[in-house]
Amino acid sequence: MKLDPKFVQNLSDAANRMRISAIQMTCASKSGHPTSSCSAAEILATLFFSEMKFDVSQPKHPAADRFVLSKGHACPILYAAWEEAGHLTHEQVMSLRKIDSDIEGHPTPRLDFIDVATGSLGQGLSCAAGMAYVGKYIDKAKYRVYCLLGDGESAEGSVWEAAGFSSYYKLDNLVAIVDVNRLGQSQETMLGHDVETYRKRFEAFGFNAIVVDGNDVADLMRGFVLARFSKDKPAAIIAKTLKGKGIENIEDKAIEARIVDKNGKGTLKVHKPEGDVPQANLNIGNIHIAAPNYKKGDKVATRAAYGTALAKLGDACPRVIGLDGDTKNSTFSEKILKAHPQQFIECFIAEQNLVGVAIGAGCRDRTIPFASTFAAFFTRATDQLRMGAVSFANIKCAGSHVGVSIGEDGPSQMALEDLAIFRSFPSSTVFYPTDAVAAERATELAANTRGIVFIRTGRPANPVIYDNNEHFEIGKGKVVRESDKDTVLLIGAGVTLYECLKAADTLAGEGIHAAVIDPFTIKPLDKELIAKHAKRVGGKVVTVEDHYPAGGIGEAVCSAMSEEGNIRVKSLCVTGVPRSGPPDALLEMFGISSTHIVKAVKHLLH
Amino acid sequence: MKLDPKFVQNLSDAANRMRISAIQMTCASKSGHPTSSCSAAEILATLFFSEMKFDVSQPKHPAADRFVLSKGHACPILYAAWEEAGHLTHEQVMSLRKIDSDIEGHPTPRLDFIDVATGSLGQGLSCAAGMAYVGKYIDKAKYRVYCLLGDGESAEGSVWEAAGFSSYYKLDNLVAIVDVNRLGQSQETMLGHDVETYRKRFEAFGFNAIVVDGNDVADLMRGFVLARFSKDKPAAIIAKTLKGKGIENIEDKAIEARIVDKNGKGTLKVHKPEGDVPQANLNIGNIHIAAPNYKKGDKVATRAAYGTALAKLGDACPRVIGLDGDTKNSTFSEKILKAHPQQFIECFIAEQNLVGVAIGAGCRDRTIPFASTFAAFFTRATDQLRMGAVSFANIKCAGSHVGVSIGEDGPSQMALEDLAIFRSFPSSTVFYPTDAVAAERATELAANTRGIVFIRTGRPANPVIYDNNEHFEIGKGKVVRESDKDTVLLIGAGVTLYECLKAADTLAGEGIHAAVIDPFTIKPLDKELIAKHAKRVGGKVVTVEDHYPAGGIGEAVCSAMSEEGNIRVKSLCVTGVPRSGPPDALLEMFGISSTHIVKAVKHLLH
Repeated sequence: MKLDPKFVQNLSDAANRMRISAIQMTCASKSGHPTSSCSAAEILATLFFSEMKFDVSQPKHPAADRFVLSKGHACPILYAAWEEAGHLTHEQVMSLRKIDSDIEGHPTPRLDFIDVATGSLGQGLSCAAGMAYVGKYIDKAKYRVYCLLGDGESAEGSVWEAAGFSSYYKLDNLVAIVDVNRLGQSQETMLGHDVETYRKRFEAFGFNAIVVDGNDVADLMRGFVLARFSKDKPAAIIAKTLKGKGIENIEDKAIEARIVDKNGKGTLKVHKPEGDVPQANLNIGNIHIAAPNYKKGDKVATRAAYGTALAKLGDACPRVIGLDGDTKNSTFSEKILKAHPQQFIECFIAEQNLVGVAIGAGCRDRTIPFASTFAAFFTRATDQLRMGAVSFANIKCAGSHVGVSIGEDGPSQMALEDLAIFRSFPSSTVFYPTDAVAAERATELAANTRGIVFIRTGRPANPVIYDNNEHFEIGKGKVVRESDKDTVLLIGAGVTLYECLKAADTLAGEGIHAAVIDPFTIKPLDKELIAKHAKRVGGKVVTVEDHYPAGGIGEAVCSAMSEEGNIRVKSLCVTGVPRSGPPDALLEMFGISSTHIVKAVKHLLH
Repeated sequence: MKLDPKFVQNLSDAANRMRISAIQMTCASKSGHPTSSCSAAEILATLFFSEMKFDVSQPKHPAADRFVLSKGHACPILYAAWEEAGHLTHEQVMSLRKIDSDIEGHPTPRLDFIDVATGSLGQGLSCAAGMAYVGKYIDKAKYRVYCLLGDGESAEGSVWEAAGFSSYYKLDNLVAIVDVNRLGQSQETMLGHDVETYRKRFEAFGFNAIVVDGNDVADLMRGFVLARFSKDKPAAIIAKTLKGKGIENIEDKAIEARIVDKNGKGTLKVHKPEGDVPQANLNIGNIHIAAPNYKKGDKVATRAAYGTALAKLGDACPRVIGLDGDTKNSTFSEKILKAHPQQFIECFIAEQNLVGVAIGAGCRDRTIPFASTFAAFFTRATDQLRMGAVSFANIKCAGSHVGVSIGEDGPSQMALEDLAIFRSFPSSTVFYPTDAVAAERATELAANTRGIVFIRTGRPANPVIYDNNEHFEIGKGKVVRESDKDTVLLIGAGVTLYECLKAADTLAGEGIHAAVIDPFTIKPLDKELIAKHAKRVGGKVVTVEDHYPAGGIGEAVCSAMSEEGNIRVKSLCVTGVPRSGPPDALLEMFGISSTHIVKAVKHLLH
């Protein structure tokens, strides 16, 4: 490969200018990661000014190559690259880590050139793989996806989940670059500078792995060319670098000496994106599905209704996709696979990657991703979801098999913390549909709602209680039973709503009348409706949930009522580690059956 | 290698008897995973009756080899192995999945031969690695650790975190066995029967990897012998099997025909454990550390005090160990490393494995593990912690750098969901020490408390407010400010307690008197103390926390007061995605500073 020596020098000069800028930023902010930035200067310079095709004036151009900085703590060098490209001014990058600046300590999509927030290590490659999958199979476009990882973070299992996925799907439009600078935060990494082992690992995971000198722009260019020749395989550039490269003598002069052409700034041009990508009008807010089609009393699991609605969403919007972690026959996401095979991504048993791929697939509004697995196993991706919130990601999660009502499979499969976790993320929406009609509407509303949306579905088939034309809204609960003789308010969702209704029947037989509310969304909670009825019945409320106490329906209601005064809430929930057994027996044993509700009501009223 | 053909036949017969029993169990329970059980019949038979050394009458003998069934859904074959060994009766195993039986749908330590619950895939190898690390470096004993994984679950990144760890620490007493039966739950696995790729992956991760026919006991025996020759490397047996092996003809007769010696049951003997292990008297409940040594007003971060106390615990009990994920210089766990290098395990940037290793290290009461990293990164191990609760595991987690008060590093590093997550696990204990004295005592109490214990520590150095001889108890809060003129109760912890005190000063200047409570533990919460003072001041409470709303201090207090009536709680917390900036400015911007408290109090009182 013959390279123009002047261009190589220009690139090298750019890397050093970026390095200097990154050091200046971190000196000004008095914190940050200058050494991790410096090791990657040549990588970023080569990517930005030789390899990638993008549009500086429109960083999220749909046809542009994507770049994910998985080692987010090295963001000063990324900011410096955008400065070198002319998108940021030096004054802007010098505002690093200031409270009124979007040049944050770790990158977030508050900046127009960031697709996903990073800073929790090991997550970038999954997001990049999601983008690459969409590029290759959905957009069928030419754009490529580059992801820069640190060596230390390659200890994160999520990296290998993403690697296995990427080779399985032959993502030859994906390039992982590992900045092997040898040093972690507190000591040398497990593999140090052993680039051969990195090469073997990526090769074993199906990558075309190429070792280069990561502080040599010419060698990096060679590596990227080889990566382009990688057909049906993703590529990994194993870049051996020095942490803090270029700052042995911290004085500007020592570094500046390496910049051969001092007037070189601005001479490097960025390659514009080539080719078109198809329109992807997600139409969020206006996606409609055919009305549910059930008979009241039909026994249908909410997870089955979720699958039905997802398939209908697939009809309504070709950019709605389903993703699953080898549970599609249990979560019923297989219904969209059957109806629209191109709108489904099997992610196998790797839930962190499932969520990461979904987040990546949703970037730049290319798709509306619906990820599903057992709700218990979404806990595996809690950190990815947490970062999804920081990314303002648009991802829908349907978690099935919640609570003790799954029965015989036992506690390892029972989600009992999921409401707490999904409620905790800022601006999340949490649906807990009780019947099949509600579940279909929740799924439709989820597609039309931006942000992290969780749909909690159940295993057991329970009777349909709503009309097919019942109207559902986010934050609007349903009063499913009321009379003017009510002296207590019962709140349940899913299986426990049926227990509430049963309890209300029993109580009515004893002359005690109970109103029953189905909240539909746990976040936002219909505070007004609950407060109104709580007051109407005299301030006595019983909540019942197939979930542990913390962060669930009980705490959500207590917190919503906490400023009212004069409302007493008794919360029934699962308090110990459950066990295998028949669902009904477990509801009874763990204190959330109708008999427990009846007892709690009597206790509260006396 | 010459094998006794009769012994081989006996083993093979045993595998078939186990297979039949597993099928009988799942037929009786009408659910479960007979096919995943059957593929592993020969593996279990060979392990139990040829390879492993253990004591049937004392399954958790400290000197015995350990076995972890990472593919927990195959537990019927494990139960059948213990039946074959004479520890369980056929009647017992036939109670599979019944509510009054500990023979659960996935294994839990309710059974005396289970160390860790499994059923959430990919977690077993980390626990096994923790046991092997303790065996090799702490117990310095001969026992070996065997872990059976499914092929589908090897897509979980946590498997590769554990693999990297195991080879780094040269755990040649660890054998991973992968049951490559080709099929996942909903379709073929990514690699199908491509055992060569499994071999390459484990080799690249530093294992001595051996491919065998996993339904051939002789070939398995050969594999285990080779594994014993693996010096300074863990071994991986890649066992090619058939899912549902032996049940093509489900009739008992067809299967029974393969059992050559029908009188063979009971002829196989188990090898007894050899060698001794040192005593490991953990002395839980009676571990005492030297008193804290601070001056009131000294500025000390609670994370630093945690490190100090951990080092003291290391003095007091040689079985207290620290583990970290390459953040030891930030969490201050490096203090125990410096004081007692043998009592520290660096787990690098792989938090799932960090928690899994800690859980494994705590098994059979060999150690009291204290795992630390940024609290935000414990979210990466939420599923491991959830399973830890199902395992009744004894693990202490110290999460540092909580909330917006970490400042410039930005939202990716800020734990704001951690209280919700750690509170959600049944029987967890959650400490939130405000000052250095409290942090030392929290750490000491953690060592003396079984179960999942979380210690929430902060980044900023704040003044010591407690006497060195202040006495702390779990579930007992501290009234840090009170007068008989109080008309409002403020509750804060960590940084927000200081804000409460500042607000109380400001309010006092305006004639409004506020009591201030430091809860010390958020779970259990000192309900009595809070209720008493809430009533004393007239029922007005303001909670303030550096955490998102769901599942935090506010909801814990609301829920604790929910049955009281007449107590109004206003909760201040972080409600949006934070950003980089100086800590104080962030407390102000995100609504949890003293000025916001003052405003909330005035609003509540008028």
